[in-house]
Order: sequence, then structure tokens, then C-alpha cells
Amino acid sequence: MAGNSFGQTFKITTFGESHGKALGAIIDGCPVGICLNEADFITEMARRRPGRSSFSTPRTEEDRVEILSGVFEGLTTGTPLTLLVGNHDVKSKPYSVLKDLFRPGHADYTYFKKFGHLDYRGGGRASARETAARVACGVVARKVLTPFNLDILGYTLELGGIRAKRMDPAVISQNPLYCADPDAVQFMLKALDRAREDGDSLGGVVEVRASGCPAGLGEPVFDKLDAELAKGVMSIGAVKGVEIGAGFEAARLRGSENNDPIRSTGFGSNRSGGILGGISNGEDLVLRAAVKPIPSIMKPQQTIDRQGRDAILELTGRFDVTAVARIVPVVEAMVALVLVDHYLRARAGGQCFDIQGV
Amino acid sequence: MAGNSFGQTFKITTFGESHGKALGAIIDGCPVGICLNEADFITEMARRRPGRSSFSTPRTEEDRVEILSGVFEGLTTGTPLTLLVGNHDVKSKPYSVLKDLFRPGHADYTYFKKFGHLDYRGGGRASARETAARVACGVVARKVLTPFNLDILGYTLELGGIRAKRMDPAVISQNPLYCADPDAVQFMLKALDRAREDGDSLGGVVEVRASGCPAGLGEPVFDKLDAELAKGVMSIGAVKGVEIGAGFEAARLRGSENNDPIRSTGFGSNRSGGILGGISNGEDLVLRAAVKPIPSIMKPQQTIDRQGRDAILELTGRFDVTAVARIVPVVEAMVALVLVDHYLRARAGGQCFDIQGV
Amino acid sequence: MAGNSFGQTFKITTFGESHGKALGAIIDGCPVGICLNEADFITEMARRRPGRSSFSTPRTEEDRVEILSGVFEGLTTGTPLTLLVGNHDVKSKPYSVLKDLFRPGHADYTYFKKFGHLDYRGGGRASARETAARVACGVVARKVLTPFNLDILGYTLELGGIRAKRMDPAVISQNPLYCADPDAVQFMLKALDRAREDGDSLGGVVEVRASGCPAGLGEPVFDKLDAELAKGVMSIGAVKGVEIGAGFEAARLRGSENNDPIRSTGFGSNRSGGILGGISNGEDLVLRAAVKPIPSIMKPQQTIDRQGRDAILELTGRFDVTAVARIVPVVEAMVALVLVDHYLRARAGGQCFDIQGV
Amino acid sequence: MAGNSFGQTFKITTFGESHGKALGAIIDGCPVGICLNEADFITEMARRRPGRSSFSTPRTEEDRVEILSGVFEGLTTGTPLTLLVGNHDVKSKPYSVLKDLFRPGHADYTYFKKFGHLDYRGGGRASARETAARVACGVVARKVLTPFNLDILGYTLELGGIRAKRMDPAVISQNPLYCADPDAVQFMLKALDRAREDGDSLGGVVEVRASGCPAGLGEPVFDKLDAELAKGVMSIGAVKGVEIGAGFEAARLRGSENNDPIRSTGFGSNRSGGILGGISNGEDLVLRAAVKPIPSIMKPQQTIDRQGRDAILELTGRFDVTAVARIVPVVEAMVALVLVDHYLRARAGGQCFDIQGV
Repeated sequence: MAGNSFGQTFKITTFGESHGKALGAIIDGCPVGICLNEADFITEMARRRPGRSSFSTPRTEEDRVEILSGVFEGLTTGTPLTLLVGNHDVKSKPYSVLKDLFRPGHADYTYFKKFGHLDYRGGGRASARETAARVACGVVARKVLTPFNLDILGYTLELGGIRAKRMDPAVISQNPLYCADPDAVQFMLKALDRAREDGDSLGGVVEVRASGCPAGLGEPVFDKLDAELAKGVMSIGAVKGVEIGAGFEAARLRGSENNDPIRSTGFGSNRSGGILGGISNGEDLVLRAAVKPIPSIMKPQQTIDRQGRDAILELTGRFDVTAVARIVPVVEAMVALVLVDHYLRARAGGQCFDIQGV
Repeated sequence: MAGNSFGQTFKITTFGESHGKALGAIIDGCPVGICLNEADFITEMARRRPGRSSFSTPRTEEDRVEILSGVFEGLTTGTPLTLLVGNHDVKSKPYSVLKDLFRPGHADYTYFKKFGHLDYRGGGRASARETAARVACGVVARKVLTPFNLDILGYTLELGGIRAKRMDPAVISQNPLYCADPDAVQFMLKALDRAREDGDSLGGVVEVRASGCPAGLGEPVFDKLDAELAKGVMSIGAVKGVEIGAGFEAARLRGSENNDPIRSTGFGSNRSGGILGGISNGEDLVLRAAVKPIPSIMKPQQTIDRQGRDAILELTGRFDVTAVARIVPVVEAMVALVLVDHYLRARAGGQCFDIQGV
Repeated sequence: MAGNSFGQTFKITTFGESHGKALGAIIDGCPVGICLNEADFITEMARRRPGRSSFSTPRTEEDRVEILSGVFEGLTTGTPLTLLVGNHDVKSKPYSVLKDLFRPGHADYTYFKKFGHLDYRGGGRASARETAARVACGVVARKVLTPFNLDILGYTLELGGIRAKRMDPAVISQNPLYCADPDAVQFMLKALDRAREDGDSLGGVVEVRASGCPAGLGEPVFDKLDAELAKGVMSIGAVKGVEIGAGFEAARLRGSENNDPIRSTGFGSNRSGGILGGISNGEDLVLRAAVKPIPSIMKPQQTIDRQGRDAILELTGRFDVTAVARIVPVVEAMVALVLVDHYLRARAGGQCFDIQGV
Repeated sequence: MAGNSFGQTFKITTFGESHGKALGAIIDGCPVGICLNEADFITEMARRRPGRSSFSTPRTEEDRVEILSGVFEGLTTGTPLTLLVGNHDVKSKPYSVLKDLFRPGHADYTYFKKFGHLDYRGGGRASARETAARVACGVVARKVLTPFNLDILGYTLELGGIRAKRMDPAVISQNPLYCADPDAVQFMLKALDRAREDGDSLGGVVEVRASGCPAGLGEPVFDKLDAELAKGVMSIGAVKGVEIGAGFEAARLRGSENNDPIRSTGFGSNRSGGILGGISNGEDLVLRAAVKPIPSIMKPQQTIDRQGRDAILELTGRFDVTAVARIVPVVEAMVALVLVDHYLRARAGGQCFDIQGV
């Protein structure tokens, strides 16, 4: 029983391997009448695309999204919306060493244990390239959410141990790290230089803030909004931790410090990250994801081959030094997908009163 | 479209409010032939139950689990297994103030915004009492997993900012905080005393380690094992963050530090927390949950009433000072539920080779 | 992966065996604010109940529905609604012969082949008693559909080969067979007498007409309204065939005869049974179910025991001569459940325009 | 909440409109290691394809299936399997009249009522062309079922009121109607000639027999094998009725006639159609589907336009006279899809003992 679908009302099913013919997604449940064309995807797909800077792999395919079905005369029809992204820049050669050796920190070993039969070309289905389909679906999700003036803003909060101290939204799109603190960017870039020189890689923390989210989204007791966000974000390859609002810091606060006062003018603080009891409260949603350093490094590493014999893996070629920036649009997409799914779920239940007013 | 089911093959659906007649769960998909009787639930239900110590509410109902269906002659039949827990100690009186005022940090406000119609008695469906059904289902899940010699061990890693430094499993059941470090327990107890005197509450961190988990569990790309664990654990009321293995610390490591070497004798470290690419690798699963301080405190708090007017909430009676210890068995239960569900899913796919050997 | 849930937005999960402690259902997704109390179930539960006449088993338990959760102050809360029906009149004794022999036409053999472990008491989960939970859920479904002035009317169209020729709704509740043709009733009753004297049983055809169903319900291409109705009705124990509108007769018509003309004043005929392309068209839904004769008969029957040895089964006691009448409210319930589920699904999609006007 | 997925363990999601770029399907849950290449689809796709004879539309595109993902080195990988069928022979012109008028008996009216926005080109998503994706998925389903020596055999049992009297499997592939009775074929062909001359169309009955199905498949009480078959088959565009085994005829039998005796050597008859209590009993599965006459006819028909005004529809061009033969492989595909899904579901539950022996 496989798990390549996400969402219940706005259900996406993604497909495709790193080096197969194509990847993409079907969205089943996209409401009718959403204005959509292939140009709508260009910006977001470019943000996720590798090769934008010296810090990422120079795979330069365009990641153009083709709409195969579900749109007629520029509007969605309510039938399945199929998005296709071709794999044009596929060279299987540099991956031949992976035919035998498992890369530490990658999914090679576990896919082999699970499936026996392994597509070793660039990670196959486990490649970060899979996230292109998520970003494409996220574009459609945001279009559906347009009436809410929802603003889903992601950025690099921390990279290589360097934490942003300021939050200036205007800065985000002006640096390759999608960081909101122009000073921190400089230190981060230097850290990346050092890591690259060492043949090593860096991790970091992505933060997403979503403003404009109406109160009432989330379906207790299991499909709570925070639970679904946690699942969606943790399902991104490199993510090892997720927190909402004060998150792990909340564990160190007292109740009197952590409770957000409620006033007639709104909440007095937002340590809840916009979610109480698994339901949005109308404040900004605040979420952070811990991104591990990219496991592909240039240093020799201890591993085993498929027969279980010890071996040393030495990767050649050029690899990303960090995945943090590229993951920013992916986390944004997952937040958008969770929100649109819960918006439609609330609509089914006739429950969410702020939404009905829209 | 409500969300009170969890799991796909071992699907639980829970029901019940804090002050209704009863709560419980249906398990649909429990394999046939599992030996099960009502006594099997006693220990775990007691671990979760409030009133065990001076740090928790003195609600003393027994939380006896009654099996309504699905067991015949002591064995599960493959038909729906229904577990019922009565609510015997229900006094609606102390909650009358909640008829008008929203408690900060609780779900009162968001349930009201979502549903309009609110069961204000003790939190209704949003009460921590809901987790009794989870723990009961977890007992069955562990029974199904018996062939694996799986050991799911949860404990309080941190409480009120005090972090355990040692990990002695034998200690866990010998203190009311389920902490594995006997020295830390003393400091934690003192911190709790101080918080209680102040009419305040404390949060903390729960850690769970599961050994004996076979490699190959988890269904990429969305129903990855870590994604499902994150959802399951984040869906517990007070949890605000989840991390796997090195978690947020991984964000500060370099690739060469974070990658676990693979040797012919096994993995050389376990910063992955037993999960690579969303699939278990045979190492111990390691997961931490950030538990916020209990929002019910004795200090006056700023809030609003149902008409949106400013008000001061003053709770009387006696409340838990921390939920951390009580959440330990709940996190364990969610881990067990995720594992059994993915074990059966892997069995459907015929995929998980280590399991087939069992 | 068991299958005891039905519906996606108004999702029911039923449980319970014929001779267990209780049976019932959880409804997850019942909209908030529906007025509901235990008295609402009495009429429908009585219609389904055996023992109403000389044609059915004298099991006289009251089938009172108890609401365990999900209702507060007389209104549904949007949380799981749990309905419980006790099994009070349980005598395991007459069933002891079934411990060894499989009853022809019953599910004993297939449950044993599937599960190995068999609850042989009165059919266990496979008993017709299971349908009590469906009828109880159907009562709630109809309450949710109240705004549509939907009228779901079921009746016995045919019994023992005798087909009703008239359709007088007022007659239905005035005879124990729920037949709408007073003349046919007399012949049917005589046929039942003869069958009883012979120790035999009779089948028949149930027809349901639902008027007031808005256009636009149904989710192609798999969850079409007719497909879901077919599944729901075929899942009732004794049903062996389902047809919509002209049904099998349509196979013998020409296109020019079978197409319903569309006029500015409405459809000119209703051979489609109210469904085109899997979506309701606003006409009456018309559905027929073929009900096989009850397999429990007083004549000796060839069978085998659990060891596969030939044996003769001779049932003693008293059994229903036909299930047709008792199935009428069950088919009605399934139709109501499909309609409410698709109403909420259409609401999620924002698709069904007639509904939005309500 | 749309409904373009079918199956739970072997889950297919189909997409595509009649005149869009392409149609196809993702199969999520196809087991790993199934030998599969694009040539495997040719035969079945040709059986379904229109233009094979003078009785069907001359749309001659090849319906070649392209595998976009999920196969590596000739074997399925356990990741999503994507099948694509291009739409090459798309001429929108003859459909321009449909921009305004609803075709009686078609889904134009109901799609318009449901979605408002209508792809009027050849039926869009409601076109019979959609079934190409089902047939392609059915090919994969049969491959997975290979170990069972399952034989799923469909044929035209009745056409235009002419019923086959013999069942000679060798004849089926030798006539364009897929009928197993060579004498009946001649009468059916003449009836089709007459209907074509009259500008009219014919319906019929398709029967499918599946031998080799192990006992134990089906998941009561809702996902019974017959219930799922009924849904799958009724979801095919032109199908208006489904019956299992004796079907509607069972309604006219007595219990002593309808019960299949069980002998140590097997069942003495098969009026159950291979299903008891919703679970397969090891006998041949027998299922019949009522297929309505094609609604597109050359005679003038009363209808309305989008503004609700009366109008006369006069179709020109050339249309199929009957869909019965083309639906044969589609019904077979749906049976295969239901069986593979329930085989994997039984495997998850560890329940189906005959299967485990394989």
C-alpha cells in the first residue's frame, strides 16, 4: 500500500524518478473555474530549480510544467488536473558507482531493503527532484486560496549554524539563500564557501509564515492542522524536525509565559504559531523545519556494497553544498497544500464560519 | 470532512468527549487470531491515567477498557474491534465558568470558531482525556507487533528546562515523571513544586526509542515513516514540535558529521534516528516531542467571552502542573500505531523483506 | 485491510456481531448543529426489526439506539457521533450445530476460509443483524438532508415471483411486506404461507425512489452516484443485483427509446433513473435490488463440516421466510448515506449549484 | 472531493478528456518486480479501441500506452507507475453543435449542472474514451495476478434483445461482437444493421466469468467483493445494472433452489456466482452488466440549450451503433482491478489462506 498521494479533498498523487522520462502529478479535487495556464508555474519552478547559483548543482533543465488535462479554455474543469515535467538533462553516467554502493545518509540502503529492485540512477524516486511535482501542485493550491489574501512566506532562518536576526521580506528574493537578513546572508555565504572547499555540506532551518489564514481550519483529533503540516513538511526528503510557533522552546516556558492572551482586539502574542487544539486561530501560522546537510559530499565515506561488504565511497562530480534554500519553496508548497485541503474539508462540513463569509 | 481516524490498514477511529457517556475506538483491520482480553489494557491505561501523583488531577476513574466486539473465544476475529472506556467521574460543575470564557492556550476559542456549537465541559472532544482511546489502541498495536520483539520505550527527557543526562531504563517506571535519570528526577520534582506554588505549569520533552523495528517500513513519498510519526505525535494535544534522530541539531552539523557510516557490521552511528528516505533502516527509531506547559493555570489570565468582550479568567479547583509524564504512554501508543500500520502496508505490497522472514 | 467504513465525508464505521455485547457505528463527519436525540431512531429501527410479523424471526429485542458521543444539548457537535445498539436477546444455544457445519448460502464457509477463526454464533459479523447499524446511521443521514425535502421511499416490488402492479405509497406502511400494491400483498402473503409450510424461503425485489434529489451529485469517473449506490446496496447481505432506472430493461431498448427527452419544462421521461454520466439530473432516483431467498431453510441440506467431510444440515427452530421486507429500510438507509456523502462532497468542491442555493 | 481513484492497495487514478492532450493513469501500489513493458498493452488496448469494425466509430488512433515512470530495467520498482495514452486524432469541429445543446442520454446536462464550466468536446471527461485508462490499468492488474492462473473471460451475452444460447470461448475473439455463440452473432449483426439503417442504437448485456479466483477475497461489511465489483462495473459509462451469479433470477427462486450445496468435492452448483457473504468461495466469479444503447443517434431529438430553451438536436457524422462489444474488455479490466486490490488487501491482513499457499 503505497503512499504517493497527499490530501483528501485536494488530493495530489505524484510520480516520477530522477532519471525517468518525466515526473509530475495528478490533482484530483481542484475546484472548477480556477484560471490556470502553463505560464503560472514558471516563477515557482525556477525558485526550486537547481543551478541558480554556485551553491547548487548545475543541472539546468527548465522544469517547464505542461498541463495534460483538467483545463479547458483557461479554466479548471473540476476533472483531474495533470501536470507533467519532463526530464531532459538526464545523464546516467556519473551515477554508475551507485549501482553497487549505498550512499551514507541517502535512501539507497532503505529502498534496497524495502523493494529489492532499485533504480540507482540519481536516487530514482528518492531524489530531491521529486519535489518539483510538489511545487507545481503548490502553485495550483495557492490559486485556489486566492480569495483569502493568504500570504505564505518562507525563508532561510538558519544555515550552517548561522541564524538570521532580522526579518526583512524584501530581502528574501534578492539573495540566493532566500534569507530575510542581509547581514546573515554574508556569513552564510562564507560558511558555504568553506564547506565547499572542504568537500562538505551544510544544513539549516527553514521558517514559513502564513498570514491571512482564517480561523477554523484543521480536523481533530488526528487530522489537526499542525499534525498535517508536520506530516507534509517531514515528508520532504531532508527534513528531520518540525515545530509550530514556539515549538521546542515552548517546552521550556511556563504556562503563564506560553499562553497567548486573548483580547477583544486579537491575540496578545503568537507563541501558538496560529494553531490551538489543532485548529487555526486566525493568527499567522508559523512553522520551522530542520534541514539536514546534503548527504552527498566529496569526502571519502565508509559504506557497504549490495553484498554487504565494506567499501569506501568516493563521489566525483559536483554536488549541492546545501539544500536549505531549494527547500524553501517546497515547504511553502506543502503549507499551501495542507491549507487548501483543509479549506475544502471545512467547506464539506459547512463548519468554518470565517470562510463562509468570503 | 472530519479527521478522527488514523492509519490505513490498522485503522483506528476514536470517539468521545471528556464529559460524555463514554469514549473509545473502533479498530478496523486488526489481524485475526491475536490473543486479547480486557485485562491486557490495565497497565497502560493506568500509566496514562491522571491522579497517579500530586502532580496531576485527582480524577480517579479507573479507565477500564471494555471490548464490545471483534473478539471471540479470546482471539481477535478480523472484524471490527471496539474498545469502550466509560466516563464515570464526570462533574460538570467546575466547568461552568467555561460556558462563557475562552481559556487561553486551550482549544475553546478555535472549536467555537470552527463549530459554533461548543461542548464546554472540560474541553469536550479537545480534552486530554481523548488520549485514553489512543493508549487503548496502542495496546492492541503492540500485541500485533509481538513477533518483532519490538521495544517501544518512552520517557521524560526534559521537564521545566531540566534535561536528563543519563538513560537508565530501569528507573523510568520507578518515578512518577517516567524519567530515566534518577538525579534529574529530583530537580524536576522541585521545579514542579515551585510551579505549583506559583499557580503555574511546566512543559518538557518526551523521547521515544523503538528497538527491533525491521528495515523497510515507510511508504514514500508522502507516507514516509518519519512523516507519519510526525503527524501521529503532533496530533497529541500539547505537542508543538517533533524531531527524528539528530533533529534540529542535524541542521547545525556538516554532512560529514551527520551521515551515519554504513559498515558490514551495521550503521556506525544513528543520527538518522533509524529512518533514511522515509524508510526504517533497522536501527533504533529515535523521536522527540516538545510538550508545551499545561494552559490551565491558577493565575488570572486575559481573555474574551463568547461575545468578544474582554474578561479575566480565574480558574479554581486543582489542575495538573505538567502533562509531560502522562503524554509518555500516548507518544508510545502513536509510535506503535504507526509501526503496525506500516507493517501491514508493507505486507500488502509484499515489500518488506526482513518482515517476511518472520 | 478491512472494509467496515462507508462514505468519505459522512463516514460511517460499523461494528458488532450477532451475539456479541453490542453493535453500532461511529459517524465521523456529521455536520454540526443537527438536532438529534435517541427517540429519533425508534421508528426506523422498528421497521427493520425482526419479529414484527409471522414472517420473520421472533427475536424481540428492542434495538434501542443509545448516543454515546457527538451530541451536546440536543445538537450534533461536529465530533464523532457514536450510536450503540445492545444485544439483549442473545441465546447461543440453537446455533451449536453451526460450530461444525457450514450453512449453504451463508457466509460461514467463506469467513472460515478467509479468517480461519470463526464466530459461529448466528453468523457473527455476517448476520443480518449488522444492518441495524446501517439503519441507525441512515436516520442521521436523512436528518442532515432535511433542507432538500428529499423523500426516500422504499417498498417491496416483487416477492416470490409476484410483482406489484400498482404503486400506492399510502399502502406501504399498512402491510407487513412494505408493498405498495394492496392486491399483490395478498398473493405475496399466500406465497409466504406456502413457502413456510414447505420449510422453504422466498426472495424478491426492493425498489427505492428518491424524490427531491438536487442535480449535480456524484463524482465521476469512479465515485459516480450510480456506482456508489450499487456498492452500498450490493453490500447488503442478501442482495445479488442492482439496477438503476430502466436497468436491465435498458439493454433491450433502442437509443431512441431509452434516451429521456429534455424539455424546457424538465425531462420527458425517467428511464435514466435520475442519473446521467454518474451525476444526478434532478429527476427521481430509481433503484432496484434483487434479494435472494433466505438461505436458512427447514429442509435438510447437503454440506460439509470444518474438516471437509460431507454432512447433512438440518436446522431446527424458527427462521424468517423472507428478508425482503426487512431489507426495505436498509436499502433506504444506504441510499440516504450515499446521498448525504455526495452532498457534502459536492459542498467541498463548491460544485453543486442547486445545492448552493439552499 | 472528486472521485477519480479506484482501489485502496492497488490504487489507480485516471485522468484525461476525450479531446485533451492525453489521458492515462497513475497506479500507486503496484508491487515491485512485475515484468512490464509497453508492448504488454497492445492487445487489450486494441480490443477496446473503436474503429475495429463497421459498428463502431472510425477514430483510428493507436492508443499506444507509454510508461512514464515506475519501471526500471523491465521490472516495476514499487514506485508510482504512470501510463500515458496520447490523443492524436482529435478534431473538435463536429462537436461544435454541442457547445450549446445538451445531448439526451449523455452527461452534458449533468456536468453542466455540477460544474458550470463544461468541456463540450466529445464529452470531455465523460467520454467513453476515458475507459482506455481503465483497460491499460487492467493489463497491469492481470500481470500481478499471474500466480493465480486467473482467467477473466468477458463476452457479449445479449445484444439488441438477442441472447446467446451457447458459450464457446474459442468463438469470442473471432467475431467483432465478442460473443461466445456463433449463431447468435449472426442475428446480432443483422439487428445492428437494422439499427444503423434507422439511425438508432442498441444495448445489451456483458457477462464476465473469472475462474481461478481463490477463496477469501472481499472485505465485509461494506467492501465486500460483490459490492466492489458492482461499484467498479456500474462506474462504466453505459452500465445501468449489475448482477452476480443468479442475480435478479435469484429473487424468483426458493431458498432450496438457490442455495448451492456444499460437498466434499466442491460446490454442487454456482448460483452464488462465486461469492458468499461478500467473500469469494473459490468457484467461478460470474457477473453481468446491463449496457444501455448508445445515446448518440442520428434521429432528431428533443433537448434544451444552455439557456434552457427547447431545441432539436440533429447529430451528423458517424457514431457507434452499440457500445456492448467495446465494453467487454472494460468490464474485464474492472474485475481484474477489484481482484488485485482485494488480493493485496487480504495480504495486508494476512487473512486469505489459499493465497498464502501460493
